[in-house]
Amino acid sequence: MSTIVMKFGGSSVENTDRIKEVASLISKRKQDCRNLVIVVSAMGKTTNQLIEMAHSISDVPDKREMDVLLSTGEQISISLLAMALNAQGLESISLTGWQAGIKTYGNNTKQKIADIELQRIHAEHQAGKIVIVAGFQGFDEEGNISTLGRGGSDTSAVALAAALKGECEIYTDVKGIYSIDPRIDSRAKLIPELSYEETMEMAGLGAKIIEARAVDLADRFNVPLMIALNTGMHQGTRIMKEVDVMLEENVITNVSVVDDVVLFNIEKFGAKAEEVLELFNHFSTTDVNIDVISQSFNDDISFTTKKEDLTEVQDIVAHFTNHAIDYKDDVVKISVIGNGMRYQSGVAASVYEVFAKNKVKFYQV
Amino acid sequence: MSTIVMKFGGSSVENTDRIKEVASLISKRKQDCRNLVIVVSAMGKTTNQLIEMAHSISDVPDKREMDVLLSTGEQISISLLAMALNAQGLESISLTGWQAGIKTYGNNTKQKIADIELQRIHAEHQAGKIVIVAGFQGFDEEGNISTLGRGGSDTSAVALAAALKGECEIYTDVKGIYSIDPRIDSRAKLIPELSYEETMEMAGLGAKIIEARAVDLADRFNVPLMIALNTGMHQGTRIMKEVDVMLEENVITNVSVVDDVVLFNIEKFGAKAEEVLELFNHFSTTDVNIDVISQSFNDDISFTTKKEDLTEVQDIVAHFTNHAIDYKDDVVKISVIGNGMRYQSGVAASVYEVFAKNKVKFYQV
Repeated sequence: MSTIVMKFGGSSVENTDRIKEVASLISKRKQDCRNLVIVVSAMGKTTNQLIEMAHSISDVPDKREMDVLLSTGEQISISLLAMALNAQGLESISLTGWQAGIKTYGNNTKQKIADIELQRIHAEHQAGKIVIVAGFQGFDEEGNISTLGRGGSDTSAVALAAALKGECEIYTDVKGIYSIDPRIDSRAKLIPELSYEETMEMAGLGAKIIEARAVDLADRFNVPLMIALNTGMHQGTRIMKEVDVMLEENVITNVSVVDDVVLFNIEKFGAKAEEVLELFNHFSTTDVNIDVISQSFNDDISFTTKKEDLTEVQDIVAHFTNHAIDYKDDVVKISVIGNGMRYQSGVAASVYEVFAKNKVKFYQV
Repeated sequence: MSTIVMKFGGSSVENTDRIKEVASLISKRKQDCRNLVIVVSAMGKTTNQLIEMAHSISDVPDKREMDVLLSTGEQISISLLAMALNAQGLESISLTGWQAGIKTYGNNTKQKIADIELQRIHAEHQAGKIVIVAGFQGFDEEGNISTLGRGGSDTSAVALAAALKGECEIYTDVKGIYSIDPRIDSRAKLIPELSYEETMEMAGLGAKIIEARAVDLADRFNVPLMIALNTGMHQGTRIMKEVDVMLEENVITNVSVVDDVVLFNIEKFGAKAEEVLELFNHFSTTDVNIDVISQSFNDDISFTTKKEDLTEVQDIVAHFTNHAIDYKDDVVKISVIGNGMRYQSGVAASVYEVFAKNKVKFYQV
């Protein structure tokens, strides 16, 4: 079997007991696969604690130094995991981003992977060792430490699998990707197979199981992905290029529900396109994330944001225009996802039918 | 002025407020010196916390991985200090051991510095930056992270000063080295100048202000040292090759008192030299640190250890011999230090006189 990259997130390694459990899982996987690469995130809340320290030094901490600081989180977990494996008699070695040859470029705190120099990893595999790589980090051309920003560890794992022409397994707190959040609907089904595209839409919508950026990378390099539970070898969700769709059965693979939403409406604001442009350009310079935008027949402009941005959005809009702004915060965003929808009409109609029968009002579609 | 290396230990950077204070002190020093290198230890108790984590994974954690783990402590402090300096408008950059070119060799967790490649530090100085280097760490020939063991940060600082042909300032919680611990005798005087040799004896005796290993390195490369208070620019203790000794005044520069001592006596044990050798060889494989050893006219062997080793020493001796062992734990070790003693006789006599007048019994001299 070729190389397998196993990735464990922060909650899988949140304390030393969990790290020992992860080591046991790896030791089982080692029986099937000679060349293992393990990618690990920082333990539990470590990254947040480091960010807090940085902010107690400065409101706008130097970004190069932020990368030096944050990269210690993953360095701690790789060394502890290597100790745990070695203590179980499984020869292993930890490698930081620079030791693993992960070359990056771009802006500090959100760099991109340029290339991976594989010599060290190959040498350690040749020596029969399990290689443990710090996720989320690399080094730039000048030999500075860099980090990859949001979704960094997933991205490290997929990039390593791509470079090593192997497969990538993302271990999480859930068994895989479900048709709907099981906490919302107990009839939720584990989806055995998904396409990259479907997964990316779900990831973008906040499924929180894998980052869209990493799925996109897997898609581009055709890396087979598997989402699986971090405590055992249950069959999870496999993600690949094309999924055979049983047209009539699997039209809709997933329903995502996001309830942290506020819907704004600015009366008659759409009449002057340049004003609208100015407003949304300004939003793009802030932390406010504008989601669905639409314009009504009578030139009202509406859009959604997260609830936490409510006050900031009101302030910004008031600054830019005198048009009346109104909002609703008793709304949710429901996304219906499925490759099969391409080949079959009438899905929207049946969704509306459900809304109508249940007297659910809808605003934007 | 040439390069100055300023070293700050763990208590000087134990929290982010202290780090900001250190940044202010550095900014003052920068006015006098263009090329500054700052060497920092891990914050407060960080290293102990990391060691605890490692021991919750394994009783005997892998030493290579221990180095990966421990080196994160200093990496956190250098990045925070660089942020603090940059926030004050002082351009600075943090460098880990490998980035600063500190090449090491030997056994993990207690490596020695082989060489320092200065290109990066020179380049950053050329660019006008204050260079902040992680103490206690380096990298070996294969590109593994290494740590220097006990006294590592002092050693890093002195080695950098030696390589850069500069001076080294060690900032601590005290104003400098005193003639005697001020907590023991309020008449203690700050010593303005000391020789490397005198300092080394005191450091070895547990003065805890600077590690003997670092002083030894300074001696060999003739690096001017200064011990000074970490909160201001008070004149501290200068340490150099030769100190002008006013013969009659400065015969004794320092009196060290260690009260964590137990004195053992093994009756008639010295008659068989090979048995004595076997016992002390065995001690050298344990953590028990045997200090002053002597043999009496009637072949009793006596030696001192720390009080915490009392039971272990009794067990070991009982295992090796049937000779009776006795101990006294109401003793202290007093060391009288001074280059001037070389040129002047009668010091021992005057020390005994003090003992006699005060009815203090002494055992070993």
